[in-house]
Order: sequence, then C-alpha cells, then structure tokens
Amino acid sequence: MTEGQLREVLEQVRTGAMEVDRALDRVRHLPFEDLGFAKVDHHRALRHGMPEVVYGQGKTPEQIVSIAGRLLEHAQNVLITRASEEAAAVVTEQLPGAEWFPLSGAIRFWGDRTVRGKGTIAVVCAGTTDIPVAEEAQITAEVMGNRVDSIFDVGVAGIHRLMSNRERLASARVIVVCAGMEGALPSAVGGLVSCPVIGVPTSIGYGASFKGVAALLGMLTSCASNVCVVNIDNGFGAGYVASLINRE
Amino acid sequence: MTEGQLREVLEQVRTGAMEVDRALDRVRHLPFEDLGFAKVDHHRALRHGMPEVVYGQGKTPEQIVSIAGRLLEHAQNVLITRASEEAAAVVTEQLPGAEWFPLSGAIRFWGDRTVRGKGTIAVVCAGTTDIPVAEEAQITAEVMGNRVDSIFDVGVAGIHRLMSNRERLASARVIVVCAGMEGALPSAVGGLVSCPVIGVPTSIGYGASFKGVAALLGMLTSCASNVCVVNIDNGFGAGYVASLINRE
Amino acid sequence: MTEGQLREVLEQVRTGAMEVDRALDRVRHLPFEDLGFAKVDHHRALRHGMPEVVYGQGKTPEQIVSIAGRLLEHAQNVLITRASEEAAAVVTEQLPGAEWFPLSGAIRFWGDRTVRGKGTIAVVCAGTTDIPVAEEAQITAEVMGNRVDSIFDVGVAGIHRLMSNRERLASARVIVVCAGMEGALPSAVGGLVSCPVIGVPTSIGYGASFKGVAALLGMLTSCASNVCVVNIDNGFGAGYVASLINRE
Amino acid sequence: MTEGQLREVLEQVRTGAMEVDRALDRVRHLPFEDLGFAKVDHHRALRHGMPEVVYGQGKTPEQIVSIAGRLLEHAQNVLITRASEEAAAVVTEQLPGAEWFPLSGAIRFWGDRTVRGKGTIAVVCAGTTDIPVAEEAQITAEVMGNRVDSIFDVGVAGIHRLMSNRERLASARVIVVCAGMEGALPSAVGGLVSCPVIGVPTSIGYGASFKGVAALLGMLTSCASNVCVVNIDNGFGAGYVASLINRE
Amino acid sequence: MTEGQLREVLEQVRTGAMEVDRALDRVRHLPFEDLGFAKVDHHRALRHGMPEVVYGQGKTPEQIVSIAGRLLEHAQNVLITRASEEAAAVVTEQLPGAEWFPLSGAIRFWGDRTVRGKGTIAVVCAGTTDIPVAEEAQITAEVMGNRVDSIFDVGVAGIHRLMSNRERLASARVIVVCAGMEGALPSAVGGLVSCPVIGVPTSIGYGASFKGVAALLGMLTSCASNVCVVNIDNGFGAGYVASLINRE
Amino acid sequence: MTEGQLREVLEQVRTGAMEVDRALDRVRHLPFEDLGFAKVDHHRALRHGMPEVVYGQGKTPEQIVSIAGRLLEHAQNVLITRASEEAAAVVTEQLPGAEWFPLSGAIRFWGDRTVRGKGTIAVVCAGTTDIPVAEEAQITAEVMGNRVDSIFDVGVAGIHRLMSNRERLASARVIVVCAGMEGALPSAVGGLVSCPVIGVPTSIGYGASFKGVAALLGMLTSCASNVCVVNIDNGFGAGYVASLINRE
Amino acid sequence: MTEGQLREVLEQVRTGAMEVDRALDRVRHLPFEDLGFAKVDHHRALRHGMPEVVYGQGKTPEQIVSIAGRLLEHAQNVLITRASEEAAAVVTEQLPGAEWFPLSGAIRFWGDRTVRGKGTIAVVCAGTTDIPVAEEAQITAEVMGNRVDSIFDVGVAGIHRLMSNRERLASARVIVVCAGMEGALPSAVGGLVSCPVIGVPTSIGYGASFKGVAALLGMLTSCASNVCVVNIDNGFGAGYVASLINRE
Amino acid sequence: MTEGQLREVLEQVRTGAMEVDRALDRVRHLPFEDLGFAKVDHHRALRHGMPEVVYGQGKTPEQIVSIAGRLLEHAQNVLITRASEEAAAVVTEQLPGAEWFPLSGAIRFWGDRTVRGKGTIAVVCAGTTDIPVAEEAQITAEVMGNRVDSIFDVGVAGIHRLMSNRERLASARVIVVCAGMEGALPSAVGGLVSCPVIGVPTSIGYGASFKGVAALLGMLTSCASNVCVVNIDNGFGAGYVASLINRE
Repeated sequence: MTEGQLREVLEQVRTGAMEVDRALDRVRHLPFEDLGFAKVDHHRALRHGMPEVVYGQGKTPEQIVSIAGRLLEHAQNVLITRASEEAAAVVTEQLPGAEWFPLSGAIRFWGDRTVRGKGTIAVVCAGTTDIPVAEEAQITAEVMGNRVDSIFDVGVAGIHRLMSNRERLASARVIVVCAGMEGALPSAVGGLVSCPVIGVPTSIGYGASFKGVAALLGMLTSCASNVCVVNIDNGFGAGYVASLINRE
Repeated sequence: MTEGQLREVLEQVRTGAMEVDRALDRVRHLPFEDLGFAKVDHHRALRHGMPEVVYGQGKTPEQIVSIAGRLLEHAQNVLITRASEEAAAVVTEQLPGAEWFPLSGAIRFWGDRTVRGKGTIAVVCAGTTDIPVAEEAQITAEVMGNRVDSIFDVGVAGIHRLMSNRERLASARVIVVCAGMEGALPSAVGGLVSCPVIGVPTSIGYGASFKGVAALLGMLTSCASNVCVVNIDNGFGAGYVASLINRE
Repeated sequence: MTEGQLREVLEQVRTGAMEVDRALDRVRHLPFEDLGFAKVDHHRALRHGMPEVVYGQGKTPEQIVSIAGRLLEHAQNVLITRASEEAAAVVTEQLPGAEWFPLSGAIRFWGDRTVRGKGTIAVVCAGTTDIPVAEEAQITAEVMGNRVDSIFDVGVAGIHRLMSNRERLASARVIVVCAGMEGALPSAVGGLVSCPVIGVPTSIGYGASFKGVAALLGMLTSCASNVCVVNIDNGFGAGYVASLINRE
Repeated sequence: MTEGQLREVLEQVRTGAMEVDRALDRVRHLPFEDLGFAKVDHHRALRHGMPEVVYGQGKTPEQIVSIAGRLLEHAQNVLITRASEEAAAVVTEQLPGAEWFPLSGAIRFWGDRTVRGKGTIAVVCAGTTDIPVAEEAQITAEVMGNRVDSIFDVGVAGIHRLMSNRERLASARVIVVCAGMEGALPSAVGGLVSCPVIGVPTSIGYGASFKGVAALLGMLTSCASNVCVVNIDNGFGAGYVASLINRE
Repeated sequence: MTEGQLREVLEQVRTGAMEVDRALDRVRHLPFEDLGFAKVDHHRALRHGMPEVVYGQGKTPEQIVSIAGRLLEHAQNVLITRASEEAAAVVTEQLPGAEWFPLSGAIRFWGDRTVRGKGTIAVVCAGTTDIPVAEEAQITAEVMGNRVDSIFDVGVAGIHRLMSNRERLASARVIVVCAGMEGALPSAVGGLVSCPVIGVPTSIGYGASFKGVAALLGMLTSCASNVCVVNIDNGFGAGYVASLINRE
Repeated sequence: MTEGQLREVLEQVRTGAMEVDRALDRVRHLPFEDLGFAKVDHHRALRHGMPEVVYGQGKTPEQIVSIAGRLLEHAQNVLITRASEEAAAVVTEQLPGAEWFPLSGAIRFWGDRTVRGKGTIAVVCAGTTDIPVAEEAQITAEVMGNRVDSIFDVGVAGIHRLMSNRERLASARVIVVCAGMEGALPSAVGGLVSCPVIGVPTSIGYGASFKGVAALLGMLTSCASNVCVVNIDNGFGAGYVASLINRE
Repeated sequence: MTEGQLREVLEQVRTGAMEVDRALDRVRHLPFEDLGFAKVDHHRALRHGMPEVVYGQGKTPEQIVSIAGRLLEHAQNVLITRASEEAAAVVTEQLPGAEWFPLSGAIRFWGDRTVRGKGTIAVVCAGTTDIPVAEEAQITAEVMGNRVDSIFDVGVAGIHRLMSNRERLASARVIVVCAGMEGALPSAVGGLVSCPVIGVPTSIGYGASFKGVAALLGMLTSCASNVCVVNIDNGFGAGYVASLINRE
Repeated sequence: MTEGQLREVLEQVRTGAMEVDRALDRVRHLPFEDLGFAKVDHHRALRHGMPEVVYGQGKTPEQIVSIAGRLLEHAQNVLITRASEEAAAVVTEQLPGAEWFPLSGAIRFWGDRTVRGKGTIAVVCAGTTDIPVAEEAQITAEVMGNRVDSIFDVGVAGIHRLMSNRERLASARVIVVCAGMEGALPSAVGGLVSCPVIGVPTSIGYGASFKGVAALLGMLTSCASNVCVVNIDNGFGAGYVASLINRE
C-alpha cells in the first residue's frame, strides 16, 4: 500500500464508499514498507549525492554489469568495491565512465562531483602494503563528495615523518588511518589532533599479526580517546563513516 | 626552552651576545614540546569546554581527590570514570560539586553547562544490564556540552520497541548504541538512520558471549555501513567520539 | 495510537471532522507498536499458558520481588532464573507460592499446571555436576506445560547406562541433553532416536574444557543430524525451545 | 544373529534340540545390532519417507555414483550434499532423475513427493551470499516432505524488508535463518514469531567475521529465547532438524 | 533381566511354559546392561585391585563422606581427588584410614598395597609449583599398585639436572612428566628414554602461558615420538593411564 | 671420543704414557655423545626391530630416496610418512621393496616382519574420511612388529556398530581411536574397555570443527580415565606410542 | 663424582689399584653434573655479581625467609619477585637489609652495588598503571649492577612527551619499554634509537586488551627492527636480558 | 629547513637582516625532520656499516631492482628479504654482486665485509625445516658485520646433540635459536649459556602447532631468564637485534 493507496482508502472512508471497520482492517495489514516508515530521515540533506554501492566480491562480471547498469539509470555516482580484474575489464568496456583502481579493486562512476563535505578528510597509511585499503577509503570518500588529503608514507617507527605532516593532519575534519602489523598509527595520529580518527586494521603482516587481529586489538585498545574502529580491511566503511561525519 | 627562551637566544644573536654556532646548537637541542609543536590545532574552537578526565580504576581515593582537586583549580568540568564506591564517598565529601553515578562509577563536576554540540546525541541500549555502559557514554557526552537523548529499552528481539523510537533516532546527529550478547542492535539502528552510529559492545552475557567478544565481532562485521566501534565497555570513548562528531 | 484511536481518526474522516491530508499525516506517524503490528501470531494457541520470565542475575532481591509481584497480578506462571540465595529468601518470604530450586537458582510460581505439550520432553545429563543446568531446563519445560522425564545418570563413557534408558529416550518427542567436558552425549543420544535433540554445553570441567567451549564445539560438530545447540549453561533456552517444539 | 536366527534358537530350545546352557551362551554373544536394539523407534511414523543422505565432500564421482545407485534401489528420495561440479556431471549422466543445484552443490532424487510436514518451514536469509546455505536447507526440507517458503532478501540493517514479510514468517511452523557477518537475523526473526527458529551461521564475510565465528557467537548469545543453532554453513542439519520438528 | 532371568525364559521355552513369540519379545526388550554386555573384559586381571575413585570437586564434605563410606564397604582402595581442606577434615575424622595430601587435595584409603605393576613408574616435574599435579599422579599410580619413582627437581633450562637423573628415567617402564610454562620437559625426557611418556600440562605460569595452554600445545607438538598427553592439571588421568600401561 | 678412545686414555694412564692431569682434562672435554651417555637404555630389548622413520613432508623425491637408501643399508624396516605422490613414484621405482599407501602418503619397507608386540593393537575410526590417519597409525604399528586389528566403521552416533565390535575391542591390549568432528569416539571406546586408549583428533570437518580443534578438546576432556591424546592427524605418533605400550 | 673423585680414579689406574675395565665402567656412569659439563661458561666475567633470584609467588612467607636466608649466606645480592605484602612484612622483619617495593612486590638485598654494566639501561613506560612492571625491570637491572634511567611518563598518544625525552633515550645502551593497551610504545621508541629495545606487554587494560594479549601481539609485529619481546608482565625477564646485553 | 637554512636565519638575525619576531616564527614552523631531530644517535659508531634493507614480499621484480639499484649507489651492503624466485632471477641478472639464497628468499649485496661485531653470533635450529628462518638470521647478521656460527642440527628431543655443541654455544656473545613445533630449544640453550638468547618461533608443524603459535607461546613462557622473542618466522629481526647486541 503506497501513500496513494492509503489516501484512496481515506477518501473512500470520507465518501462513505468504505466502512470504518474495513478501513481499519486494511490499514492494520498494509505492507509495512509502503508507508515509508522504514527510513525516516530528518536530515534528508545528508542523503543528497549519496552514491549507490555494489559489493563486487563473489559476483560474476555479468551480474556486476547488470546491477551497475541499472543503478546508473538513476544515479550519477556508483561505486563497485572488490571487483576482480576480469570483472573490471568487462565493466569498463560495457559501461562508459568507469574508473578502475586495480590496487583496491574498486570501480567508480563519478558523474556528480559536487563537494558536499564541510572540510577535508585525511586518509593516512604507513607503507605501500596498506595502500589498497587506504585507496578504497579515499575513493569512497571522494565519490561521496569530499575533498581527500592522502598521506601514504608515515609510520610509528619513523615518527619524524608523522611529525612533518602534523599540519596536514591538523587541517582535517576527520581522519582515516589504515595500518597493519601492530596497528599503532591511529593512536599516534589521535594524539596529535582533536578531530575524530577512524582506524582501519589491515590484514598486512605475518606470524603474530594473525591477518589483522593484532592491528584490530591495538586500535580497539588505543590510549587516544578520539579513535573508533571498523572491520579489518574495511576501507569502504571507514570512508563511508568519515563522509557522514564530514557532512554533518 | 619556552618561546620566551627562544626569543632570548635570538635577541642575543642579534646583539652579538651569542655566536651563531652556539645558538645553532642550543636550538637544535631544545626540548621538543616547549616549542608548541606537539598539538597544532587549527580547530581550536573544538577544544573549548573540553573536560579534564581522570581514569579512576586502580587509583586510591586519595590519589583521585588529589588529581581532581588540582584539575578543578583550572577546569570547570572534570570527569572521573570507573571510581569505586569508596573513592566516590571520599571525593564527594572533600570536593564540592561532585555528582556520583553508582551504576557506571562515574563522578562528574559540571560547572560549565554551555551546549556546544550542534545537534542531539542519542544513547541507546537494549536492557537494564547495559545501562552502566550507556550511562558512562551519556555522562561523557553531557559534560562535553551535548544534549543527550537516552533510549534505554530497545532490543533486536523486540523490534517494535525499536520502531516506536524511530523518530527520536532519526532526530539524532550521531548515535551511541551499547549492546551485549549478540551485539546486533547497532546494525538494526544503523539501518534506520543516515547518521554515524558508534557501537559499544558490553561484557554482559555468559557462555559464548565471552565477556563481550561476541558483541564486538558482531558490531565489527555489521552489515550497516554507518557503524564504527570502540572497545568493550568503553562508554567513555563512545561518548567522547560522539561529542567530537557533534561539534564539528 | 491504539486501535481505538485509529478508529477515531477514521470516524472523523468519515464524518468530515478531519481532512484526508491530516488523517494521512497522523496515520503515517502513529507509534508503531500501538497498531499491534509487532507480534503477528497465527499460532496464537501456542502462547496460551506461556509463563512470564525474569532473568534474576544481577538484579537485587527488591527488584526481583517488585517485578515478579507485578507479573503475578496477571500471570499464573512466573519463572525467575539464576536468582541468588539471598534473593530467593526474600522472594519466598514475600510472594506466596514460590518454589526455590537452589541448584539452578530458579524460583517458580506454577499456578496453572495444565499440560499443553503433546508428548514428553526428556531431559538428560551425564553426571551430578551437570544437574543444575538440566534442572533449569526441566523447570522451564514444566512451567510451560510439559511432562518431563529426567534421566540424570547416563554418560558416553558408560554406554550401557545410556542403552538401558533407550526406551525412555525413544518415548520422548524432543530431548534436551546437557553435557560438559567433551560434550559427546548429544551425539550418542541423537544416534539412538529420531526426534529433535537440543544440546546444552555446560561449563563443567577444567583445563581444556575452557568453561564449556570444548562441549560447545563438540555439539556443533556432532555427527548426528538431529542435534541443534544453545548457549553454554543455557538450560532455560533449551527448555524453552523444547516446549515450543512439543506444543506444535 | 537376525530375528530369524533368534527365533530358531528358541525353537530349538522348545523342541529340545538345543540345551538351555548353549542357548544362553549364544544369546549372550549374539551380534548386538542384529537384535534391532540400536534404534528403538516408537514414533516409527516419523521415519516414513526419510531420504537417504550421502555427504559428497571428499568422495570421488565414482564413489558417489556407486553409493547413490545402491541406495536408489530401495529409496525413492536420495540427497547428496556438497558434491563437486565434476561429480554432479557424472551423477546426472549415469543416474536418472537427478536434480543438480550448483549453488549448494546438492544433488537430489525426489521420487516420493508426499507432503508429511504438518505446516510450512520458512527458510530465510539476508543476501545473495548466504543463498547457497539456505538452498541446502530448503532442498533438505523439501526432500523430507515439507512445504518450504523461501524468503531470501531480508536483513537486520533493512528492517522494513523483514517487517514486510512478517505475515509469511508468522505462518511458518518452524523457521531456518541463515546469516553471515554479525549473524543478527535469527534474533530479529525470533522476536517476531513464537515458533522455533534454527540459526545457521554462514562463513560469509571477511576480517573479524572469522569465517562464520562472529555469526555463530551472535546466534548462540541471541536475546531471543526461541533460537537454537547448528554448525557454520550446516544448511543440511538445519533443514533436517526443522523437518523433524514439522513432522511431530 | 539378569542372566538368571534369561535362563528362566529359556527354561520356560524348553518346558513349553512360554511360547517362542513371547520369549522373542521379552529377549528383544530386556534391559541392556543386565546381560553383562556393557563391559566385556578379556583382560580381567587388569581390573584386580582397581581403586574406586571419587571426584571431590564441587561435592560437599557430607556427600564425599557418604559416597566414600559406601565404597569402603566393598573396596580396600579408594581415592578421592580435589577435595577441599574442609572436606578433608570431615573425611579424615569420620572414616578411618584416610591419608590427606593437602598439595593436590587427594584423600587416599590404601588398604590393599599389593604391587601389581610390572615395573616402575617415574613421575617427573620441573619445580615446586608443579608438585601438586605430580603428587596427584603419584598417589593415583601408587593406589593402583605401582612402584613410583618421583623426580621433582628437573627442568629444561637446567639440563644437567635432567641428565643426572638419566639412569632413574631409563629404569622406568612408563614416565609421567608434569610441566607448566613452555611444557618442554616431556620432549626432553622423551628424547632420553624409549618407554612411553605421558605429558601433563599444568596451569602454572602467567601471561602467555594462558593457564596451561602454552604447555598443552608444546606437549602436543612434541618432536619426541613417544609422548602422549592428557588434560591440563590432570595428574589423576596420567597416573591412571600409566598404571594401565604398567600392568599390561 | 668413543669407548675405544676412552679405554686408550685409561691404558695410557695405566702405563704412565699419559699424566693424570692431562687425562683429567681430556675426559672432561670429550665430546658428549661419544661416551654413549645420551640414550641409556635398560630395556634394550625394546629397541630391537625399531624401524627407521623419515618425515616426508617438505622433502624432495631425491632427498627421500637418498635418505631412505642410506637407512636401508642397515635397517630392514623403514617408514616414510607424508610422502607426495610424486615422491612415492620415484621411491618405488628406485628402491626395491617399497609399499605405497596413497591415502596416508606412507611408504613402507617391511623386511623384518617378526611380531614383537605381546598383544593386538586395535585401530578404530568412525568414517571414511578418518581412514588416512588411521591407516598411518596401522602401518606404523605393523612395521614396529605388532598385530593390528582395524575397525574402520564405528561412530558415536551409531552406537550399535560400536557395540557389535565390543569383543574385538576388548581383545586389544591398546587401542588407537581416530576421530574428527566432535571427537567423542575415544570416550565411548574408553568406557567399553580397560586398556589404554590413544585418541587421535583428525582435521576432518568444517565450521566449528576448526580443523581438528573441536575433536582435540573433546578428547582432552574425555570423561573416560583411560584416554590419552596425540596431536591432530598424528597417526604416526599414536601408532608409535601404542607399539611401545604393546612391547612392554 | 666430583673432579676430585675422577682424579682419584685416574690415580688408581695409574698406580694399578684399579683395572682399566672397572675405571671405564665408573667413568661411563658417573653422575653427569659432577663433571662440571653442564654450564660451560667462557664469559665467566659475566657471572660476577649475578644476584640470586627467588620467585615469590605461591610461596609462604616462611618458605621465602628460609630460602632467602640461605642464599644470603653466600650472596650479597638477592632479589625476591612477586612477594605478597604479608611475605614482605615477615622478610623485612627477619632478614636485615631488605628493601620492599610494594608496587611490584619485589624485595631486594643489594649488598654489592658495584656497577658492571657498560652503559645506561633506560626503563620506559606510558602511564601510572604500567609502573609496577617497569619497577620490576628497574630493580632487576639495578641489582645486576646497572645504572638505570627511568622514564615513566611517555606514551604514543602524547608523542611530544616521547620526543622531549629523545636525548635520554638516545643515551641508553639498551631500553626496556613496558606498555599495556595497544602496546605501541616499543615501536615508537624503536624508531627513535639504534640500540636494542625489549618490549614488555603489561596486562593493563580491559575488554579487547585481553589481559595483555593486544599489547603482546602489537610488540611482536612491531614495524621497528630493533624490538624483541618478553612475556606479559615479565619486568624481571626484561631487566635480566637488558643487563646481559649491557654487560657484554 | 636544513641545518644550513637554520644557520642562515641566525646569520640574518645577527646581521640584522631578519627581525627576531620573524625568525621566531620561521623556527617555530620549520619542517620537523629537517632539523635532524628524528634520529639523535649518540652511539653513531653503531650505524657504520649498517646495511640497507628491502622487504621483498609483495613487490614486483621491477620494483625490487629499482629500489635496490638506487640504494646500491650509496650503500655497499644491501639485503633483500623474502624475494620470490622470479624476482631473484631478475635482480641477479641486472644488479652485479647479488647472492641469492633460495631457502629463505634472501638476496644479499655484501660489498663491505668489515667485521664490526665484538664476538660471535651463534644461529641454532633443530631440523631441516627450520633452516630457511635460521638462514635469514645468519645472512642478516653477516651482512651487518658479524661472525656467525651456524649450528643447524640440534633439538630438545636429542639432547646429546645439544650437549655436544655446548662449547660452541658457550663461545657465542649472543645466540639466535629458531624452532617450530613446541619451541623448547631456546629454553634448553638458555639454560646452558649466560649470554642473551633470541628465540624465533617458526611456522613449521601441523595440527596443534597452529602455524607457530605453539612455539611462540613456548618461547614467551620460557623458564630460562635470558630468553627474549621475536615474531614467528622473523629470522631477519632476530639477526638484526643480535647484531645490535654484538656491536655494543
């Protein structure tokens, strides 16, 4: 029952075409979502320019093309995450406007480049191995309408590099920090700034890094109060939350 | 070496009272923090009204009184977390203005009640057992200058309660969700709103809840994109990050 | 908005006292649960005789008395689980009709003893140490209107005891099996019968039993196809699910 | 010693052809299972129409064909689970009547389609990635003589989808819920219905989902009392237990 | 149905007092254990002198006295493990002949001191903290009729102590080695002798010893082929298995 | 320094050709193992007929051929474990007398088939998937001079199969039980016999079996006192320890 | 057999009082350690001034007094770790010269204060809660003859404090860093200096710190190459290894 | 701002070309690292001859050649770790002087072979499977200017081999011990010597070795006080720390 249908019921009650009891019954059983109850958004402005997102992992190239094609009929910005190289080849060939980012496996359609974020989102990582995750965060934040400042070469064991970038860090409104191994970078960054820091543990490392668990635990137990955390390798989630914060 | 001392060195160089080589040497070795390098804050406004925080666990009542007393000479708002009942008795007796919250063990001095947050922070939890953690988040957010809307009686297994509060949830600018056991509430809340959601796993439960690990894993793997997470039972951290987001 | 209120809105539309647009708006925003959407139960018969349940752990004796007292105004059967001895003393003194089971910490008010289950529920455990959990399952099943057959002295390492009880096991419509240590009993029982078996790992044991984890994993990986599992020490949950099955 | 042989012994005792001592000795040592002691089934009706099941994983195509062929001589319904594509090709070629389900790897021979379940079994999952496990549960329940209602597109983060299906859920006599990631769906479903809910954690997810552990812990610690759990990815087990419940 | 009853049935068949069909039926349903099927022991010699064992943990002093008292009517050797000091006081007062071992919490009644083991069992541990577990193994082996050689002061980090005892180790027919921390002692002992070595991890240690897990994993992955393992702190089990080996 | 060399030193002291001080010094520094201190074996009989063992995993076919070839110059019985198919092809071609067991990857040279074990070793497993591990145990026990009785088709969920084999189990002097999934079989077997039982958890299973961890924990916490355990999939170790026990 | 006894044997051979065969036999079987083989120390200088160490945990005050008293007859420096307050009271009363450190539970007898370390050992920790572990490291290093520089107020989230101490850190020959929570401090310190850094994870923290596991994993996966690690809370071990390094 | 630039500022102040205020401002904001603050090394001698290190894993052959080529313009000693065979082929072809070590995947350029270590570093491992990790430690120590004594054939279960090498072990100034499985070798070695021992757990083993976790826990809980630990398989880190210790 859409709003139109509900209005019709009420109209029929008003005109006497439907009895109150029957109307009561119909309203009681009307399909839930059709009333628009599900997502009641007072900050509707927030949703403007939101990209459509497709989680590419485990989907065939054909499935991705089909879903993305349909979304592109209505949306200017579409983000496909974790697409295989094979899928990327098919998508970029069949759908115009696709950008392919091989490190993170992201494919981006970025038709509406309006900047909606109020400030800059910094995306920080320690070394080359964390870049795929950081790139996913960066691409997500950009397609959601944010200016992103990528700082991809700092680490806890080389604190001077971090200190050299303290001005850029301090300029950000929210910071995403991707780190594998001991995952200490969010704590160090968090201690330098006053804005929210979103830590993304990466699965980089070997032995006792346990595919990101060491980094995850490190970030959860950070001694900096302004750090929160998302799942291991979840660059997309970090970029998404950072965008929401930057839009508020 | 403070700024005053650095100025003096430069003055001496100017007047010739100190040679360049000696000045070079002194500048090179001057204590780092005195130059004000450490915390370069462009968003200085953010820091206005920030409370001083004392982690009470493991400190004697005397230590807490001494630290808090010193802080109160300069700060209007002081928050002591995880204080024992014994410590609370001593603090409230010796330091005027202390509020004691026995559930969470927090003690609050809230002299400056200026509201600085732009919107409301909702603090949500499922049942009575999660309230201590939710209370810590609420008190933290309040003492940091935020309006807080506490919704303490919703849960995933009683979805209608959650749905009844969808308006209040949708009115918030950021939401803190505390949940033990399976920790599914942040996902359900995250699906209803567009703002950032901060999940706080609580150590409530028994058996396979493993003192909050089940809830923690549940929140980290949430299927809602707008959820980030802090440490188990870390109501303070959630309230702190929520406050930073609400101030931006 | 209760059903009464919705009827009133419709009546006002009918009489023209309220315009359709305003009615539309009111219906859209009416509090969710009041429409009775939340729990749509076609098998309403199932709910007859359902006891009210209070989780006693972490509640003060006064809280328990207050909650239970209120429930007893409307319900004949009330079950309090995991109550402390102190709480039990207060409850049994102040509320007439309370039975106190010290092993499991359950307190039962069992006013309506109508049998609603179609068959017998067998509750099985291996040794004396598992009895508290088995007792919780038994009491739960009884207060929910089931005949319960308790078999408290069988174990995998003494297979003849199990075999001696094969008739009683085969007579049950659903079986709850509580076991600590290696948790193998549900597999053995499952192999002897065709009805559903609900395994309850108990936290009994030491060392590599890891407070019930060994038993939990054992039951989850059971080679018997008719075994499902509830949380460690969750006798209540097992008794509850068994009762639902036995009522169908 | 079959029943026939035992009768013969007794006959010989009766006729004096065998002495009591020798008979005693033979009875004492007769092979255990031949007496039919093992599976004493009072609910024999339950076993009518039970399919034969072959666990396909790790078996060669030839082994599967051989076992299934032998079973099909006596059984109308045979279910092969987790067969490889290669095995499926051989089986479908050599054994008439085979249906191949590539998502779950199941092969089904469904000669006897008598409905024996008393009501409907709902099989629910959140997204496309959980469908293979849900399919295994569905196929199992069908081949065991049940009507199955598949609801494959609901999730905790999109609660309106769940609510839209509340009528179908409420119509079921038992519900199987498959979910990966945080595994919260069984709790949400459990809160909407009064019938038993069987949770199946799936190994879908990455990072802190730990191949289904997050979902498993979430389901075990569910705050809904009517939820029980089977092993990760064990769609077969869930369908099997659901069928037993639906037959009672 | 005891052997006597079965004989009676057969007699009645012989005399014609019972029909074959009825006899068939009665034999089929006779209680399993009464036929003596359960424990068919060809090595009956093994069982001579076996002590009765009571697991004391979690039992009240009264329960222990009652059980042990009953056992002592028929058995000369009774072993109570993990009894509390309070229980020990009651037992030793009320039951004559009790020896109390406070380190391990064992109480022993050792009336029949016949030596039945063919050789010596060596019980080895590294330091004073492992002695309670080693003592439990020693007392168990003694009460089961073995000569025990206790070597309580060797460790991997002081290899010369181990080497000094190589003669005593080489004289044993089976060796029990108790070790906490890294649990390396069974490997070192196993490399010095040719007989079976039973490793008992102890829960001694802190930090990464994880209450015996480090020792347990170390023993399970021992590079010595003649090492097998029992549960953490299970001195009784090790002494029991060692006794069985020594009796063969 | 061999025994011969030590004798020579002593002779030289006797004849005065070497001074006591120099002799003292030489003896003090003589290479440790040459004195034969390392393995002091009073039960030398035990070592007769011991096979040489090569751990094949990670070795090239050439390495295996080279090592085995050298060993075969002095030993009649050589066992190679965990050899790849490729390695087996090379070994069986180049070294006469090799038997290749593809399930377990073992290669056996069994020149001396003298039976040295005093009784029979039973090797038990539940299903086809556990056979590779059971086979490794069987081959090891055979090549070490034991009669082996393999019982490869019993399981806890089909207790009658186990009971049917109770005579064969009771005839064994030591039993090796291989089981994956919940690992309950050693407990059930242990309850039927009085001899030592060696449990071998296998890595068979999925989900919560965690590659053998569930079975391992189950065996370690067995409620049968006569069970000890070796590493996951360590059929060789179980066969080895069983052989030592059977030789004593 | 001491060196004296071996000399006597050789003398008897020389004089003909003992035959070579008998001498050979006696030498072969002489007790291992008496030959001084065990600890062959070329760097004997290292051992000068080594303190005797008593692990106090789990020992009674009387045991500690007795052991320490005996050691003090021969040693000037004795260190007792993890002594209870009760034990400390007894020890300090009965043994002159005892220093009691209540934070770490150490008791020190420091008669010989010769400095043997070549440089300074820095002991670093982040906050007040880590001080007990740091204190244990400091006391150990001091009693082993080292100059110790304690820096107890630096942390990763307040990097300027760390930078302010860079001179003191750079002056050390080896650094012990104690840290709980995320355990990132050793990485940060390791990046500032070229000397070896020994990380000590502390059990400080809650929730996902898992009693030091987060810190332990963080240190093991440190991105600084000059970091090695000891057990959780093992301040003694860190101070010991640091002392060995500083003596070389 | 380099030292040169800072000098220029001071000179300009001296000559009056720059005002004190402006100078103050420039000094305050000068880029951090340019002042050389980051790595303040009083033991500069330590850094002479330090090799440049490239972590090869995850880098393309071209990337490695490019990085190594650039480093070789200034450095005589360059170490590439964990290079693939393919990368090694390209590097050795294009860059003269490369040594390729296939076991560990290391590539070494060792132009400056000056010995800077004061003593010998012993690198010890138990068996052939640990050699890759030991080799990485050896190559690292050598290229950092140390004499290395490799002892690759000792193990805890064959203690005589260890004892035979006690002289070589005692001659070392620091010892690296690589061990998989139970990881007991560092304890045994640590008990024989007085110098620091660095344990490297290797991921060798199966089942309960959990890819090096058993060995890691074993080493962390070593009963020898002179043992510290690095990450699983981190031969490079062990060789690096050992070199630092040997240089002091």
